Amino acid sequence: MITSSDNQHLKAIRKLQARRERRRSGMFVAEGEDLVEAAERAGFEPELVLRAGVDVEDELLASASALGSGARVVGIYRQRWSEPGGDLSVYLHGVGDPGNVGAVLRSAHAFADGPVILGPGCADPFSPKAVRASMGSVFARPPARAPFERLAGRTIALEHASERELESVTLGAPVVLCLGSERGGLPESVLAGATVRASIPLRAGGPDSLNVAMAATVALYERSRSANRMADRA
Amino acid sequence: MITSSDNQHLKAIRKLQARRERRRSGMFVAEGEDLVEAAERAGFEPELVLRAGVDVEDELLASASALGSGARVVGIYRQRWSEPGGDLSVYLHGVGDPGNVGAVLRSAHAFADGPVILGPGCADPFSPKAVRASMGSVFARPPARAPFERLAGRTIALEHASERELESVTLGAPVVLCLGSERGGLPESVLAGATVRASIPLRAGGPDSLNVAMAATVALYERSRSANRMADRA
Repeated sequence: MITSSDNQHLKAIRKLQARRERRRSGMFVAEGEDLVEAAERAGFEPELVLRAGVDVEDELLASASALGSGARVVGIYRQRWSEPGGDLSVYLHGVGDPGNVGAVLRSAHAFADGPVILGPGCADPFSPKAVRASMGSVFARPPARAPFERLAGRTIALEHASERELESVTLGAPVVLCLGSERGGLPESVLAGATVRASIPLRAGGPDSLNVAMAATVALYERSRSANRMADRA
Repeated sequence: MITSSDNQHLKAIRKLQARRERRRSGMFVAEGEDLVEAAERAGFEPELVLRAGVDVEDELLASASALGSGARVVGIYRQRWSEPGGDLSVYLHGVGDPGNVGAVLRSAHAFADGPVILGPGCADPFSPKAVRASMGSVFARPPARAPFERLAGRTIALEHASERELESVTLGAPVVLCLGSERGGLPESVLAGATVRASIPLRAGGPDSLNVAMAATVALYERSRSANRMADRA
């Protein structure tokens, strides 16, 4: 039973709160029973698992937590990355909020067969907040990393300004949905390089935009449904 | 210029972090330029506005903030509530996370003409986190309060277990989309009382469910598109 906060395992967990340490070591932390179970289901072997009251005193584990979630179990895992691919996937550019990155990991897992591909300026998908927001999808469907220029297949750039509605885009698979940050949007190079530019139609008088995780989720849903409709017709 | 944390305005702001005080006073706080501007656009007269460096010392305003957002401006407003109504609206039951409630306020504002109707067990839509997550939609489209039994019009209960896909539901307006918490779902009384039960189809092998804000957003999008398709055919 660990009874000192100087313990090397607790130190390792605390250090992995920093992106630099995650990058250096290739490791990351998952907090809580749900995530540790999701890791197991996805075939991740933990490098370390600490259970409160079994391996470590409750308060010590709580104090090593990045989320202040009072998790009773914490695991350290080796990061895995996917390659871009699939009939439907998502490319994020400059999405700096880890909660949004994690939420998109989950939505892509729910609606697409391909990964979330992280371009420049995105939050670390293995940060505690992103792992938590992914609700385990970071294990089941590891993210990919690639610049826009390396994406294969057809790309749909989502932008509020486009008059073309996403629903009317009939591009067949493989398709990559491309989204930028809520404030900055996609850079001109992506907009210009995309196969199609399209928008999610919002009501007049409503908000100018959706949160990027919401927009990605709606776009993933729309594309998964339109793929179904096309399959029904074929 | 306020130079003491004992100032009554700062005290009022701090007290409004507590739900009990918001309920007692009928007031709430918005932090940050974006929200204060959204309030103004929606015709809310502030009871009080404090600007850092103008009305109050920077650090004092920051210390009164509930979100630790370092907001340069904070306003106090009187709560407004809508009545249920509209061709499309959302009913939430037992959604206790204020970030989710706020996100649904924003999505409903983007896709529906009716309000978000809060049933029992929902987070306070005027809590700092909900106001922030609404991105100002709490001003533009104030929430409503009502139990399920008082809803007029047709209701669609969203539940993962339903084999009926939301897309196939052709109910005409007015429609209320009903969602429960992610873990608990909707209570049996709502499921039994709803006009239709339906689900958002997720990929096999993916997550069992969507976050409630994601599910509400997808459902709102689906219903807004199907209303459009019906209008096109008419």
